[in-house]
Amino acid sequence: MPRHGMHRRCLPTGKIRSEMTVTHTEYLTIRTERRYEIRDITGEVERVRAAAGLWDGFVLVSTMHITSSIFVNDHESGLWHDIMTWLEGLAPTGLDYEHHLTGEDNADAHLKRMILGHQVIVPVTNGTLDLGPWERVHYGEFDGQRSKRVVLKVFGVLAPA
Amino acid sequence: MPRHGMHRRCLPTGKIRSEMTVTHTEYLTIRTERRYEIRDITGEVERVRAAAGLWDGFVLVSTMHITSSIFVNDHESGLWHDIMTWLEGLAPTGLDYEHHLTGEDNADAHLKRMILGHQVIVPVTNGTLDLGPWERVHYGEFDGQRSKRVVLKVFGVLAPA
Amino acid sequence: MPRHGMHRRCLPTGKIRSEMTVTHTEYLTIRTERRYEIRDITGEVERVRAAAGLWDGFVLVSTMHITSSIFVNDHESGLWHDIMTWLEGLAPTGLDYEHHLTGEDNADAHLKRMILGHQVIVPVTNGTLDLGPWERVHYGEFDGQRSKRVVLKVFGVLAPA
Repeated sequence: MPRHGMHRRCLPTGKIRSEMTVTHTEYLTIRTERRYEIRDITGEVERVRAAAGLWDGFVLVSTMHITSSIFVNDHESGLWHDIMTWLEGLAPTGLDYEHHLTGEDNADAHLKRMILGHQVIVPVTNGTLDLGPWERVHYGEFDGQRSKRVVLKVFGVLAPA
Repeated sequence: MPRHGMHRRCLPTGKIRSEMTVTHTEYLTIRTERRYEIRDITGEVERVRAAAGLWDGFVLVSTMHITSSIFVNDHESGLWHDIMTWLEGLAPTGLDYEHHLTGEDNADAHLKRMILGHQVIVPVTNGTLDLGPWERVHYGEFDGQRSKRVVLKVFGVLAPA
Repeated sequence: MPRHGMHRRCLPTGKIRSEMTVTHTEYLTIRTERRYEIRDITGEVERVRAAAGLWDGFVLVSTMHITSSIFVNDHESGLWHDIMTWLEGLAPTGLDYEHHLTGEDNADAHLKRMILGHQVIVPVTNGTLDLGPWERVHYGEFDGQRSKRVVLKVFGVLAPA
């Protein structure tokens, strides 16, 4: 390819046409030790893909709580620390939020979770998670120390016979 | 489960294999009274799911405009106020944006919408929206008082016969 | 429709039921000239849709690198400049990030990419990308001048016979 620009590559396997769609759903319950915590859950995503026998398609990974996140970034504890510090700067705890008039104290968690997002779609190709070399799926907790659920839904086709 | 950690649960229904895929698409037009406004549209998502008879799969909810958002958070008016105040702090209106050289005055809306995101995937399991207890799908408007469209696309399988 | 409020429209084509699912996967390699750069890749998304013959469904567009973004916004160079300036304010380069203890110097890129997001789902209806009039799919690079990959995965049904 040229020094700058764009290059295309088709999968050698090309298109897949299938008469059989598979779906499979699991729930993960996570209770963190600390109020703010980041955890790599890529292994769980692969486990659920394998349980479904998915060959090509997607795994949706979506937190079912509104004070936590699902996001893709580096598995590196220094970066995890940077992310938490950065989020605290952008959406500080302890401000005089209107949400706290309801008796809650976690408005910052509702805001922090918006920046990282609450779900990702992991593509699956040739029976493996189709992730780049440093892509890892993470759970981000901003109001932890209690049980939270994550739904993992597999959707796609099985291996060609 | 232990005090801290991770717990897995499979759906009792297990895997679904289907020979019939269903897709269904609707468009919602929203015109807000105010320039900045948040609206809960979860009822519309369920209505479209039911219209399609979707048993297992997804509903994609995606704004077709670049100055509005689709996001999942709490149905709580104090929090909605906090979100708008917070976004105004992160991406203020009235700055000297280059985008305004085109004659537009809504660069802040283009930025605010990036923080909350422009689409969500709602998983559907056993014929219902598979949301956590406080998860609600919201439309966030940052340049309203005119008609905007949201596409809702259902994709998945029908109930087992 | 009334002056304010919500309006619904069904597709004239209504529901599609299909016995044949198609998936198709391609990879795009992008090497930008500058470290920070925004590029419109909507044409590539449509090209991959057409290659798959997709009639109804989705194209997932997802960067495979953790220092770049995929996002939907306006194709307007002034706005692109505003986005980059804005991100630099929210997640500045050159701070004393812990991630840099690993020898890296790109923690700002890891943070910037979280704000815009790393993937989008483009709905496809009646054989065309179902985008609003100003929606364009963009690649955002925050640590460029080297090859990065984007996966495009088509999933859905072919045109009714």
